[in-house]
Amino acid sequence: MGEELILLDEWLSMFGMRVRIALAEKEIKYEYKEEDLTNKSNLLLQMNPIHKKIPVLIHKGKPICESLIIVEYINEVWKDKVPLLPSDPYERSQTRFWADFVNKKVGDVGGRIWAGKREEIEVAKKELIEGLKKLEEVLGDKPYFGGNTFGFVDIALIPFYSWFYTYEELGNFKVDEECPKLIVWAKRCKQRESVSKSVADEKEVYKFVVDYRKSHELD
Amino acid sequence: MGEELILLDEWLSMFGMRVRIALAEKEIKYEYKEEDLTNKSNLLLQMNPIHKKIPVLIHKGKPICESLIIVEYINEVWKDKVPLLPSDPYERSQTRFWADFVNKKVGDVGGRIWAGKREEIEVAKKELIEGLKKLEEVLGDKPYFGGNTFGFVDIALIPFYSWFYTYEELGNFKVDEECPKLIVWAKRCKQRESVSKSVADEKEVYKFVVDYRKSHELD
Repeated sequence: MGEELILLDEWLSMFGMRVRIALAEKEIKYEYKEEDLTNKSNLLLQMNPIHKKIPVLIHKGKPICESLIIVEYINEVWKDKVPLLPSDPYERSQTRFWADFVNKKVGDVGGRIWAGKREEIEVAKKELIEGLKKLEEVLGDKPYFGGNTFGFVDIALIPFYSWFYTYEELGNFKVDEECPKLIVWAKRCKQRESVSKSVADEKEVYKFVVDYRKSHELD
Repeated sequence: MGEELILLDEWLSMFGMRVRIALAEKEIKYEYKEEDLTNKSNLLLQMNPIHKKIPVLIHKGKPICESLIIVEYINEVWKDKVPLLPSDPYERSQTRFWADFVNKKVGDVGGRIWAGKREEIEVAKKELIEGLKKLEEVLGDKPYFGGNTFGFVDIALIPFYSWFYTYEELGNFKVDEECPKLIVWAKRCKQRESVSKSVADEKEVYKFVVDYRKSHELD
């Protein structure tokens, strides 16, 4: 099997995007396999029998699951390339804290917008804005969350930028009115080829969500 | 401040217990500060303004929050002592995966039992048993989750043993009938001084929960 590397993924997934960006930052070649989540492959079910979710990175035949765990794995295995986490234990703990914050306050909360019932959207939207404002505060005047270098928290958060348009349309608000500096940061990140080639188009995300909400009778 | 180390904690917290066990495994001295969660200290609010939760480890005046992140921090800073995570990146990724599984399938689900409405308990109980059975399968015939050495997943899970009695009383079931090997593992862990001196008494936990449920009109 050698260095065989396969990514089971779904193009619109913010969690999949994280892994794609990390692999691109490290300039690692891999085989991309798009999953149809309405008809999961046997390979996916076999490689992630616990959660049955993408992304799954299969390295030399062995699976790694959960996006942030995969990104840490990539960082540890290909450690000669640009580091994605700081080496200082305290800074690393803070990096992990904010990536976890993104999962809870942007990922989970965002899910309650795009896949939530109409009446839940208003509450979730407020929580999302609160979370994004907090992140904007943490970013401050730095170019990236890690300071001058693009890293773990940037990778955790930037995929959601592809979903902002959908949150805005459903929640009737504008992220750039609430968090202008965060949008400047997002545009800066998107100038990186590792990001631009790895993230989905916001209109494509929106189209998927409109169809999803229709078929799940959420609207 | 030197090596000043303070733990803001609450004795019955499974998340706090994780940190206490990790510190004890590494034989690190620290100052323990019990928090009254109905009247949080200014120090707690100042050190964890985001989640306002215990445990918080304060090292040389700087806070680290979120129990698993704290345990990784302890492992990285006091790295000369017995390692709590494997050094191989793949094994480390699997270790993180199962610790995350404990958070989701035991921590979150357990919370829906002890702090849940009566009608939610039955559903949560089934999910909890399913999660524990999966963990028992992962443990297999090994003495600890990490193999022959007590480590990260053991630390993540063992504090819940103090809560099993409460889950059983509320859910009307017996963990040892469902997962006998897991109970053998738990008893093995409790023979370690690092564990026995760090975990709360199951009856004390139960008393707290009964009072909590009464005051929150859950029963």
